[in-house]
Amino acid sequence: MARSPLPPLLYADTGSSADQLYFSRVEVHDPFIAFGVGSRRLTVQSALEFSRVNKARTFDEVLRLEEWRARAENRWPGRRVGPAEIIAELAHAYRVKGFRVSDDFPASLYIKLNNLGVRLELAGGELFPEREIKSAAEAAAIREGNRLSAVGYTVAEKILRQSKIRGRSLLYQGKPLTSERLRFAIESAILEQGGNAGGSTIVAGGDQACDPHQRGFGPLRPHELIILDIFPRVTKTGYFGDMTRTFLRGRASDAQKKLVAAVRAAQLAALKLIRADIDGRTVHQAVVASFDAAGFKTERTAKGSVGFFHGTGHGLGLAVHEMPRMSPILSMPLKKGAVVTVEPGLYYPGLGGARIEDVVQVTARAPKMLSSYHYNWEL
Amino acid sequence: MARSPLPPLLYADTGSSADQLYFSRVEVHDPFIAFGVGSRRLTVQSALEFSRVNKARTFDEVLRLEEWRARAENRWPGRRVGPAEIIAELAHAYRVKGFRVSDDFPASLYIKLNNLGVRLELAGGELFPEREIKSAAEAAAIREGNRLSAVGYTVAEKILRQSKIRGRSLLYQGKPLTSERLRFAIESAILEQGGNAGGSTIVAGGDQACDPHQRGFGPLRPHELIILDIFPRVTKTGYFGDMTRTFLRGRASDAQKKLVAAVRAAQLAALKLIRADIDGRTVHQAVVASFDAAGFKTERTAKGSVGFFHGTGHGLGLAVHEMPRMSPILSMPLKKGAVVTVEPGLYYPGLGGARIEDVVQVTARAPKMLSSYHYNWEL
Repeated sequence: MARSPLPPLLYADTGSSADQLYFSRVEVHDPFIAFGVGSRRLTVQSALEFSRVNKARTFDEVLRLEEWRARAENRWPGRRVGPAEIIAELAHAYRVKGFRVSDDFPASLYIKLNNLGVRLELAGGELFPEREIKSAAEAAAIREGNRLSAVGYTVAEKILRQSKIRGRSLLYQGKPLTSERLRFAIESAILEQGGNAGGSTIVAGGDQACDPHQRGFGPLRPHELIILDIFPRVTKTGYFGDMTRTFLRGRASDAQKKLVAAVRAAQLAALKLIRADIDGRTVHQAVVASFDAAGFKTERTAKGSVGFFHGTGHGLGLAVHEMPRMSPILSMPLKKGAVVTVEPGLYYPGLGGARIEDVVQVTARAPKMLSSYHYNWEL
Repeated sequence: MARSPLPPLLYADTGSSADQLYFSRVEVHDPFIAFGVGSRRLTVQSALEFSRVNKARTFDEVLRLEEWRARAENRWPGRRVGPAEIIAELAHAYRVKGFRVSDDFPASLYIKLNNLGVRLELAGGELFPEREIKSAAEAAAIREGNRLSAVGYTVAEKILRQSKIRGRSLLYQGKPLTSERLRFAIESAILEQGGNAGGSTIVAGGDQACDPHQRGFGPLRPHELIILDIFPRVTKTGYFGDMTRTFLRGRASDAQKKLVAAVRAAQLAALKLIRADIDGRTVHQAVVASFDAAGFKTERTAKGSVGFFHGTGHGLGLAVHEMPRMSPILSMPLKKGAVVTVEPGLYYPGLGGARIEDVVQVTARAPKMLSSYHYNWEL
C-alpha cells in the first residue's frame, strides 16, 4: 500500500485505540492529541499527564495542553476552544499542510477541523499498515501473551484433574466446580504473572460453548466438552495472547472424540497452508473443506447456526482482533511477518462445542508457532 | 437539553464505547450496528454472535448480518459492501429518515453514509444525555464497584500492617513489598469477588505518586505516603467503582500529616457544596480555595506541576471518566441524580502525594455517599 505523505494525527485514548497505543507507547486513559511533523512524534498533554508522559520518553516532544489552549483562545477570542481549535493552532504553528487520520477518527472533530481549514485525509484502511507486520520484539511480546494463556491452561487442567466426579457434578475442594471458579483460578494466575485477562476468559461447557463468545456460567459437568478461550493482555507491553483448548473431565463419547479430532485436523490443514502471500480466504476454505470431508455440516437454524460459522483466524497484536483476517468474506493475502490465530471450531447443541486455537507468525515457509500447550484433552 | 427526534445509530464495540454498552446491554467485542426505529431497539449480528445476543433479550430485534449483507449486495451489485451499505439498506427498509450519531462516530462511515443519502445528525454533546442521570439500579451498580474498591483497601491495609519495617525497606512474608505485589493482592481479591481492576490499580509511593496517573512500580518504602487509586469494573454490569486512599506504613512526619489533613479538608469542603444545580466549577474553586487557605501552592515547573493540578471530580458509570466534570475549564451545573467522584489531591516531589477519593450521587440536599471506607491512614 502506498503511504500517504501526510503525517498522522490521532485523537483517542490508548485503552480503546490500539493505533494510539502503537504510536504513543505510553498509556493515557483519556483522549489526547498525538501527531507527526516529518519524522518527529509529538503529543499534547494536560498538567495531569505531562510529567509522566514526558518521563516515558516515547515522544520526541510533549507539549502542554494548557499552553496550547491559551494560544487557541488568543487566536479565536470569545470562542469555546476544544481539540479542533488546538489542533488547528498546532497545524498552523508547525506549518503542517494536513494530516492522515484513521477511518474511525471522530466525525465531529473531522468536520470541525475541515471547517477550520485543516486538511485531513482518511486512511481508507489501516492508519498504520505496518502494524500488520510484527517485529521480533512484537512477536516476543505476543509469545509472552500466549505463555500467560498457557499458565491458565496449566491451572485449569490441574483443577479439572483434581475435581471429583459425583454423578452429574464436578466437585473441587468439596464444592461444585463452576465456570466462575475456574475462570477466577485462571485469571488470578495470569494476573500474578503480569497479565490481565479482564474477566473475559471463556470457560463454557456443554451447550453454552455452542455460542462461541459465551463466557460461561454456573456448574461445569463431567463428560462434557469445555471450551477455554484465554486471551490475556501483557500489562507491561499491551500485546495480547490468544489461545483456545477444549477439555473434558471424565470419559469422552465416540461422537465427542470425532468432533475434537475433526477440529484438530482442520487446524493442521490450515497450518499446512499458511505461508507468505497465500490468501487468508483460501486457508479458511481449506478448513471448511476439511470439516465437509469429515461429515460435519454447517447450517443456519432459527436460533442461530451449527457447525463452523466463524472465521478461521485474525491478526493479533495490540488489539485482540486486528488485520489480517482469514474468513469467507475477504480476499486478503497473508504478509510475511503477520501474526494470526488459527482457530477452527465446531458447535452442535446436544453434543457440545470444540475449538482449538494457536498463534503463528507468517514466514516464506512453514509458519512459526508463537503459542505452545499440549493437545491432550480427556482429563 | 432538547432531544432530537432522530433515532440513534451506533457502530462500535461495547468494550471501547460506553454508549454502545448503554444501548445494547450485552457485551460484543467487535464493532456492530445498533439503531433505533421509533422506540424499538435493533441490532445486526454475525452468525458468531447472533444466538448469544438473541438469548440476552436486550434488543427488540436481532437481525442477521449475513442476510443484510446479501440484501446490500443485491442493491449495489459488484460493489464491495461494508457497514455503510448495510446501514443504508436498513434505513431504506425501515423507512428511517435519518439517525442521530455520537460525536465520536467513525468519520469514514459518516462520510460514506452521507454519500449514500443517509441523513446523520451529530449529537453535538452526549448521544445519550440521560446517561448522566443514574437510576437507582445504576447507583447500586456503582456502589457495588466501590464495594470492590473497598475490598482492595481491606487487603492492602492488612498487608501493609503486617509488613515489617527494616531500615528503608518494607518486608512482607520475608520479601520486599513492591507496588506490583500489593497491586496483585488487591486485584486478585477484586477478581474473586466479581470485578476486574485490569492491572491498572495505582499503588504509587513517594515521588512516584506525584504523577497522579503513575501506576507505581518497585519497592514500597516505610514512612512514605502511598496513593492507592482502585477503580474496578463490575464484571456483571459493566459499571465502575473509583476510590482513592492514601496510606503510610510507619511514622508520618508533621509535613505529611499536614498534607493529608489538607486533602481531607478540601474533600469535605467540596462535599459540603455538592447539590443539584451547583456549578461543578464552583465546587472545584472551593477545593482550590481550601488548599490556598492551608498554604499549599500550585505551580507549574519545568518538569511538570506541583500542588493541585487536576480536576476535583468526574462522572462515573459505564465509563471511568464521563459527564459531568468538576474542573476549572468547564462551567457545568450538577444535575440531580448525577454520580461524581470527589478527589482532591496534593503532590510535592520530596514530600510525596496525597489524594482521597469518594463517590457521591447528587441530590437536592446533601449528596448520597456511594463509597465507604475509613480515613485512617497511618498504619
